[in-house]
Amino acid sequence: MSPSLVGQPVVRIDAVEKIRGAAIYVADLKLPRMLFARTLRSPHPHARIRAINVEAALKLPGVAAVVTGQDLNALGGEAVRDMPFLARERVRYVGEPVAAVAAEEESIAEAAIQLIEVSYEELPAVFDPVLAAQPGAPLLHEQLEAYEHIGVVQPIAHSNIISVSEEIFGDVAQGFAASDHVWEDTFRMHTVQHGQIEPHCALAQWGVDGKIVVWTPNDGPHRLRKELADALAVPLTRIQVNVPYLGGGFGGKGGLKAEAVTIALAKKVSPRPVKLIMTREEVFSATLVRHAAVVTVKTGVKADGTLVAREVTAHWDTGAYAEKGPTVVKQAMCAAAGPYRIPHVRLVGYCVYTNKVTAGAYRGYGTPQVTWAYESQTDMIGRRLGIDPLDFRLKNLLREGDTMPTGQRAQAIGLEECLKRVAAELRWHERPRPGRGKGLACTYKNTKTPSGSAAHLTLNQDGTVNVLSSTVEIGQGAKTILAQIVADELGIPVRKIVISFPDTDTTPFDASTTSSRSTFHMGNAVRIAADDIKAQLRELGSRLWHCPAQQIEVGDGQAKVRGQEKAAASYEALVKKFYGAGGSILGRGFYYPEATEGGGMWSAPSVFWMYGVQGAEVEVDRDTGQVKILKLVAAHDVGRAINPVTCSGQIEGGAVHGASSTVAEEVLMENGRILNANLHDYKMFTALDAPEVVPIIVEAPHQEGPYGAKGIGEPVLSPTAPAIANAVEDAVGARIQELPLTCEKVLRALGPFSPGRERGG
Amino acid sequence: MSPSLVGQPVVRIDAVEKIRGAAIYVADLKLPRMLFARTLRSPHPHARIRAINVEAALKLPGVAAVVTGQDLNALGGEAVRDMPFLARERVRYVGEPVAAVAAEEESIAEAAIQLIEVSYEELPAVFDPVLAAQPGAPLLHEQLEAYEHIGVVQPIAHSNIISVSEEIFGDVAQGFAASDHVWEDTFRMHTVQHGQIEPHCALAQWGVDGKIVVWTPNDGPHRLRKELADALAVPLTRIQVNVPYLGGGFGGKGGLKAEAVTIALAKKVSPRPVKLIMTREEVFSATLVRHAAVVTVKTGVKADGTLVAREVTAHWDTGAYAEKGPTVVKQAMCAAAGPYRIPHVRLVGYCVYTNKVTAGAYRGYGTPQVTWAYESQTDMIGRRLGIDPLDFRLKNLLREGDTMPTGQRAQAIGLEECLKRVAAELRWHERPRPGRGKGLACTYKNTKTPSGSAAHLTLNQDGTVNVLSSTVEIGQGAKTILAQIVADELGIPVRKIVISFPDTDTTPFDASTTSSRSTFHMGNAVRIAADDIKAQLRELGSRLWHCPAQQIEVGDGQAKVRGQEKAAASYEALVKKFYGAGGSILGRGFYYPEATEGGGMWSAPSVFWMYGVQGAEVEVDRDTGQVKILKLVAAHDVGRAINPVTCSGQIEGGAVHGASSTVAEEVLMENGRILNANLHDYKMFTALDAPEVVPIIVEAPHQEGPYGAKGIGEPVLSPTAPAIANAVEDAVGARIQELPLTCEKVLRALGPFSPGRERGG
Repeated sequence: MSPSLVGQPVVRIDAVEKIRGAAIYVADLKLPRMLFARTLRSPHPHARIRAINVEAALKLPGVAAVVTGQDLNALGGEAVRDMPFLARERVRYVGEPVAAVAAEEESIAEAAIQLIEVSYEELPAVFDPVLAAQPGAPLLHEQLEAYEHIGVVQPIAHSNIISVSEEIFGDVAQGFAASDHVWEDTFRMHTVQHGQIEPHCALAQWGVDGKIVVWTPNDGPHRLRKELADALAVPLTRIQVNVPYLGGGFGGKGGLKAEAVTIALAKKVSPRPVKLIMTREEVFSATLVRHAAVVTVKTGVKADGTLVAREVTAHWDTGAYAEKGPTVVKQAMCAAAGPYRIPHVRLVGYCVYTNKVTAGAYRGYGTPQVTWAYESQTDMIGRRLGIDPLDFRLKNLLREGDTMPTGQRAQAIGLEECLKRVAAELRWHERPRPGRGKGLACTYKNTKTPSGSAAHLTLNQDGTVNVLSSTVEIGQGAKTILAQIVADELGIPVRKIVISFPDTDTTPFDASTTSSRSTFHMGNAVRIAADDIKAQLRELGSRLWHCPAQQIEVGDGQAKVRGQEKAAASYEALVKKFYGAGGSILGRGFYYPEATEGGGMWSAPSVFWMYGVQGAEVEVDRDTGQVKILKLVAAHDVGRAINPVTCSGQIEGGAVHGASSTVAEEVLMENGRILNANLHDYKMFTALDAPEVVPIIVEAPHQEGPYGAKGIGEPVLSPTAPAIANAVEDAVGARIQELPLTCEKVLRALGPFSPGRERGG
Repeated sequence: MSPSLVGQPVVRIDAVEKIRGAAIYVADLKLPRMLFARTLRSPHPHARIRAINVEAALKLPGVAAVVTGQDLNALGGEAVRDMPFLARERVRYVGEPVAAVAAEEESIAEAAIQLIEVSYEELPAVFDPVLAAQPGAPLLHEQLEAYEHIGVVQPIAHSNIISVSEEIFGDVAQGFAASDHVWEDTFRMHTVQHGQIEPHCALAQWGVDGKIVVWTPNDGPHRLRKELADALAVPLTRIQVNVPYLGGGFGGKGGLKAEAVTIALAKKVSPRPVKLIMTREEVFSATLVRHAAVVTVKTGVKADGTLVAREVTAHWDTGAYAEKGPTVVKQAMCAAAGPYRIPHVRLVGYCVYTNKVTAGAYRGYGTPQVTWAYESQTDMIGRRLGIDPLDFRLKNLLREGDTMPTGQRAQAIGLEECLKRVAAELRWHERPRPGRGKGLACTYKNTKTPSGSAAHLTLNQDGTVNVLSSTVEIGQGAKTILAQIVADELGIPVRKIVISFPDTDTTPFDASTTSSRSTFHMGNAVRIAADDIKAQLRELGSRLWHCPAQQIEVGDGQAKVRGQEKAAASYEALVKKFYGAGGSILGRGFYYPEATEGGGMWSAPSVFWMYGVQGAEVEVDRDTGQVKILKLVAAHDVGRAINPVTCSGQIEGGAVHGASSTVAEEVLMENGRILNANLHDYKMFTALDAPEVVPIIVEAPHQEGPYGAKGIGEPVLSPTAPAIANAVEDAVGARIQELPLTCEKVLRALGPFSPGRERGG
């Protein structure tokens, strides 16, 4: 057998196209008679719409249609169906779509929306999730309990709490009573925006036969198909979602965004297609942000540092509509105790409506917020007990076979190795020079469970393979990983494999390209489909050589009789012999994890958990408060690296992303209006700002993963913030409990200016 | 179980789109930065290219590229690789592409080709296939034996005969010796053009990664993929062929047509896409025509009318390149003896190059030419023997279990019923009034064997189904037929099913939408794929109800335990239960007929034969010679009519098509140049010219066909011409042996004007 392709740094199969600028994105698409759309958005955080006058806009030459909420009575929303395609009667955040225009040119559409007159009656608004959760706060949705919602959503009637997520294991009261110390600390995480290079956009066509075709950079083509079919009350097959290359997601490219008004307009101008490309301001103010959260951690600990009990209470600022908020909160709270042995936990999260842009999925799906809290407190407790942060973690860390805080048994867990390798790389026990400090943080994350992935494969007569998969190439290298797996299974070169783009009419179901699930789930699906092809090749070999199929070995591009060197035939030869010119062999694969061992807090416990540890070395300028990140060491347990280069890319990218959102990025708002809704005033790291990152791949193979692989896309960002904050405290003794780590906060924590302050405060 | 959808006149699923003009064809497609192409074509039937000067064309503002044969050294051709994408060194017919231009606008491209200077050295040309087959004729391809070709092609070196097809069964010499009479007659069929509404066109893009994507109305997307991969020496996966709705084919939309120069230009302007829409003149002069043929039939018969031996010798005018010519000839010669019991046959066809536009597939694939010959002679022999044409046919007709002239055993043969029902509908034994006559003709046709079809199916979570199939919706209603079969197999409504358009990257292999094979082959493939889904549903049922899978019945949209009314679950419920939200079930189906019983003249005898009989009643104007077709009765054995309306549509359309090409159409040429290369001077029937057609569906179910179905697309045209000619002789005693049946020929056959001539001459 030729050497395995798995584990090799295969060059990305989309490299040439992307480097040469030839990759096609939705914004590049043009259809005959296509119209261009612009959207009129609410200037108020909360208001009743009294009247909308579109007469003048309609009269503008070149305008094809104007829509308002009156034109399409449809509600979207993945977890809760609470969001109108365009506002109806009322607006709930600054930026909510109120009307939209389709015109022959974008400039005409822009001019037309200026001509639309809307009369509003302003309503009291609420912006803070803790205040919004209080009785008597202005309500965004008076009848929130009446909305259709999925099972995990637990709304509280007559409140702004769209969902409460409560996870209990053991008995925290008993745990706290048995503890030597109980500490309670509160941590705040700020609002950030994904800042993908590609803005949200969509191209939609409503056919004369009622078929609705959408081209969109959406990370869940089949999920969007379902959401649209439900919202519009049509069968799934009436909706077709196409996703070409996607220019950066990080969680922000799910759900109904540019698609909503585009479809509303497309219906009105059917069958002319309508395209909308959001401006950067619209991306900030009307797509998604990461949840701001207030997280209180109460931890009981023995004097020797043994963790006994932990209670986490968090308020999540989910904005005006639920979107994925309730499942972000649910999934985050399940992981909110941290990757430690803690017998008693209670984890309560409140997902709270506020009059702001909707918050939703963001790399880590809530684990950045809870990791920020529990890993900041871990250092604080260690310091209080006088235990070195590394030793404190090593003492309590989850290890193979341990019971996790969620009740599952820990398996395939490379956490200890991650921690030790980060400590080694950081030279943990060497003290840095004054003004510098080191910090550590651990994290773990579950994955959406259970969820399915399906793939169709065709082995062509020349031995090449077409793979139909709805996994989105979102920049992560999924096409390359899937090609490597298929190539390895069939023993053929990667160049013989073509991975399709998602098209819900042709590529079969996949839950979504989210939750770090593609390598594991879709990797398994294509592997099963390749097995299906191999079984058929064995059958053909059995017919050719008149022996039982079990005696046929398939691999390396050929089938042969075990132990007989001469009885061998290439796939091409076998297909041609039995199926003639042009014959092919089809394979099908559907992967859906069996419900794993019972117990725990999820109805179906996570099929795998991802573990990671990051360490930071920083230098803090005592005069300005500026935090300079000297080095980030990021060790992540990926189970098995199918491609070490793409794995390292995820780790490096995630750590930089995490650093940027820790010290630089912040969505600034005033009365619900974003003040820095552009990439000039919103300070994301550029390549020049990026610190040195040392990626470390740890491999603790998972029994059910393809070749042992788990996932890697999300956990790479979660520990960065607490690692940096812990390093800041290590450097200058300033403990910051509210992100971002701005100069002002560091200076404030350092207290009045005193020249010559030394490390350790 | 709900009543079967098979056999129901289900409304075509593409009806609304087509009626409302919203169906998308290749000509409708636009891509960003798309260029437009025009082609410079040879004005000579045979010439050497001395020089091509493209300087002036290149300088014209807006011109992006000019290509000539020097730019792309690739040979296309399905049966024989003899055709350059653009002429190299030499042109062989008037219309051959010599150079092509891609420009920002079509008018610029047109202006640019006028600026290209080509210097030719004219060569002797040959236009008649009989003359071209003689030794000493000017040769079109000096080294024709050196071309790569498929197995059935039998070239004769140093000649214009690219293939000889010889089929022998029994011993004709012995048969003629044993006959009471031996008659030899020669028949000629003229050149006609398909005249599809949609002209040939293509849109091609050569990606920076070398991927070549083509959108084209081609009836064999996977066949074209293979032809292009071979010509360009790249793997199949480097070529992607997309086929949207196709606006009429009739055989003329196969092979490399507009695709060739479009791809040559696309390579030069990569990655800009290039589109070419041929003018009607180009469609006539540079795509395909039906083979003109000279067919001599020598038949030995007993005095009582029993057929004993038949020798058929035919010269086929295949034009400048082989294209499908050799297989047209092969398949036609296999059917050239007619659907009769004849123990001794010899069938020899010569496929001959001439300096004319290439001939190729045309509805019937050579059977119109041979049916014209043998069914004209059948009446002539009957008349010579004094036997009524109906009785003569009934005496010799193939019946179930008979040995066919090709050695196969006749099965599923509804020929006798066809003949009797046509005779009844025509009131055969009632003599018409003077000047009118009736004629009959039988035909049979084989199908491309063996050939494969594959389909992928996805059962979605809401019970809808996506079908991936490369069958082209060419106007015949294939989408509807396939949807009916899938709907019937799964017991769900047709509206729940979506049939994809062919895209060789996503829809699996299908040999081609030709040879009347789609209902039989792709019908079987989707049926097998539906069975695969049903087996999986039985498995889920078995898990749900804890009983063996064999006890689970699947149909009517649900699975249930046999005999237990309460243990039933819809597909949706089963999928959701075991695979969660969004789960799906994949099915795969590949149909490839087993080689049928040995013997006969094909390496793999036809998996099914189609049988049909048509009758005509005509009125002949003795003063002008004009033939007026009063009525056509067309009975065809379809095995089983999946949809009687689409079947009747094929029969009616075919009979009108046949009538038009019998009395009205003719491609007129002078020195290889077409004189009437437009739809004004080329007289095709319009709807107003169409005679009354009475379609009769006969059903002799085929054991292996889906629900017994065979095919119907092609044989519907073959018997029309001889039925009309036989009716003309019946009416006025004029026997015409050369088509078309023009007034001039009828008048000539009637001899010098004699007023008051009566019927029967």
